[in-house]
Amino acid sequence: MLNFNYSIPTEIFFGQDQIKVLAAQIRKYGSRVLLVYGGGSIKKAGLYAETTAILEANNLPFRELSGVDPNPRIASVRRGIEVCRQENLDFILAIGGGSVIDCAKMVAAGFYYGSDPWDLVRGSARVKKALPVGTILTLAATGSEMDPIAVISNPETQEKIGVGHPSMAPKFSILDPTYTFTVPPSQTAAGTADIMSHVFESYFSKTRSAFLQSRLAEAILKTCIHYGPLALAKPDNYEARANLMWASSLAINGLLSYGKERKWSVHAIEHELSAFYDITHGVGLAILTPHWMEYILSPTTVDAFREYGVNVWNLDPKADPFATARAAIAQTRAFFVSLGLPTTLREVGVPEDKLRMMAERATKSSTLGEFRPIDTEDVRQILKASL
Amino acid sequence: MLNFNYSIPTEIFFGQDQIKVLAAQIRKYGSRVLLVYGGGSIKKAGLYAETTAILEANNLPFRELSGVDPNPRIASVRRGIEVCRQENLDFILAIGGGSVIDCAKMVAAGFYYGSDPWDLVRGSARVKKALPVGTILTLAATGSEMDPIAVISNPETQEKIGVGHPSMAPKFSILDPTYTFTVPPSQTAAGTADIMSHVFESYFSKTRSAFLQSRLAEAILKTCIHYGPLALAKPDNYEARANLMWASSLAINGLLSYGKERKWSVHAIEHELSAFYDITHGVGLAILTPHWMEYILSPTTVDAFREYGVNVWNLDPKADPFATARAAIAQTRAFFVSLGLPTTLREVGVPEDKLRMMAERATKSSTLGEFRPIDTEDVRQILKASL
Repeated sequence: MLNFNYSIPTEIFFGQDQIKVLAAQIRKYGSRVLLVYGGGSIKKAGLYAETTAILEANNLPFRELSGVDPNPRIASVRRGIEVCRQENLDFILAIGGGSVIDCAKMVAAGFYYGSDPWDLVRGSARVKKALPVGTILTLAATGSEMDPIAVISNPETQEKIGVGHPSMAPKFSILDPTYTFTVPPSQTAAGTADIMSHVFESYFSKTRSAFLQSRLAEAILKTCIHYGPLALAKPDNYEARANLMWASSLAINGLLSYGKERKWSVHAIEHELSAFYDITHGVGLAILTPHWMEYILSPTTVDAFREYGVNVWNLDPKADPFATARAAIAQTRAFFVSLGLPTTLREVGVPEDKLRMMAERATKSSTLGEFRPIDTEDVRQILKASL
Repeated sequence: MLNFNYSIPTEIFFGQDQIKVLAAQIRKYGSRVLLVYGGGSIKKAGLYAETTAILEANNLPFRELSGVDPNPRIASVRRGIEVCRQENLDFILAIGGGSVIDCAKMVAAGFYYGSDPWDLVRGSARVKKALPVGTILTLAATGSEMDPIAVISNPETQEKIGVGHPSMAPKFSILDPTYTFTVPPSQTAAGTADIMSHVFESYFSKTRSAFLQSRLAEAILKTCIHYGPLALAKPDNYEARANLMWASSLAINGLLSYGKERKWSVHAIEHELSAFYDITHGVGLAILTPHWMEYILSPTTVDAFREYGVNVWNLDPKADPFATARAAIAQTRAFFVSLGLPTTLREVGVPEDKLRMMAERATKSSTLGEFRPIDTEDVRQILKASL
């Protein structure tokens, strides 16, 4: 196990009707609120009305940043910063999934930066502090509700980049599983794949001595495998939505990766797909993941895949390691198929022509991953196999 | 899954040489330190010399509260409070295992209470705030390094009681597995049993819908089962000590119990044993646990024990549920035996004569546990079976 510094300061208010804590929580950090959300879904679900009523009843004035897109754009961030400065706002409340939360975090960090916030995203300037952020989560997927990271897209440069700083971690997040009852099946499926991909990124690691973290990772994978189909079959299954929601937060808040090398691979490839074709993040991950697994399966990595097959898919521990590893990968693919997720890039409108360029961009600063580092040509092969 | 509020603010500095952060961490919270420790083991191991050298080099004046016993006593707490007040101290640094840390937390809380701190322990007065506490952990067992609870004994009244408040959670804990290399085999074994007992207390629950939490619990049990014997066989096995150390913190910091009913049983019985006979906490737990399991095994509880057997001990999922449950309990007992732990109360000097009185005291305010509530007579039967 590698050395690590553990700090997960976000407070979580989990369960039905936890929105009751909202006003008191906001007051701990500020009094003038920027409300960040996406499209009309929170209005249809009544959550917008409920939230604004609470803010009004508690004399918490607010302004709005709406229309935040999936793969949130730097233009939204710029708008949000402007509103905060003009209106002298001191707290940011995100209502939505990972895109909305990421946008809110970046507004919070950009508020204290004197120039264009894209500098902070691409790393030519550093985040130093951020306005306090709170979230009301409506989609179990990215884990952004409990981590200090934002992923922001720039359509002009066709870039999608993650940036993080301790000050960007939400002060609190309200996780009410009933808010995810109305999530459509395609998003429930993509969210489940996203959670599992976060787990895979740290589960498959060279650091084999972090035994406890690997077992915790398996716990979250089993939860996704158990409840993903149940949430699809019955969207208002509270137990399924609750377990998926909590799994989404724990998959990426640090619990699984502390003590291990931290260098991701599939996410970096997917970021290029989303940057060029604006596809749903979890869908891209679901398409790429089995191909990445197949591509990196080797005598060096086979034990980890065998362990995955035995511990997560209940495969025979006495069978041939390579057979077990391949069966585990096949189960992974079959599971994504069972959730109704696309299995090829062509299905989501990605043609062959830019694969090399995407591979080059994904690997422009270094190889990807630490479990089995992959270079430009490896990424191109994985993308090609995913067509 | 039940509603819960998650807040685990303690920062953890995990791994070899993390003591390098000590001075900077203390400075965040205070400048005049009460150093709390037990006997000579930290002096023998060089940790006392290392710590005091750091304090001196950083101009952090300190006073000492030494000689804190296992099952720490209210008398030590009173002494610590007195020193803090006389010497105008503003930070408490515990170096040791759970007993030392619990004592430090209670000094921290008692500092702000105008009368006898035993009032706070027995609940006739409430903790409102506490001095900041930091810890350097030397034993993987109680999890006190990452939770807000202290268990304090009063030999005069033969009571051992737990008390907690958010302000009592350590601000930071330094977890360097090498500090546990010198822990003697009997304490390593007792610590492992203590960790497992913490897991059992929340794992066996009526709240069956907290699937994720149950899988996380199994991850920690598997870690104890894998590494307990390795740490005994080779006390300086870093990987084993590291996994056990991190397991001890995660077993009781809330991660496994959030979203479940929280009402413990075996710990409450053991507290009576320790209060009367001052036996090692983890040893008492190891003796009682298999008998408690056998006693509560019934058609209502069999599924949970079967699941435990299948998921933790790799027993056959297709076998008869009762047979699997009994086999799982037998494996638990055999595991404790393999660690060299006593299996009967007589071995640790507990005679038959006070069983009824202890059972009455353990249940004086209510039945114990929520998975299968047990009353006075149940406790007496479990104690009798454990003789």
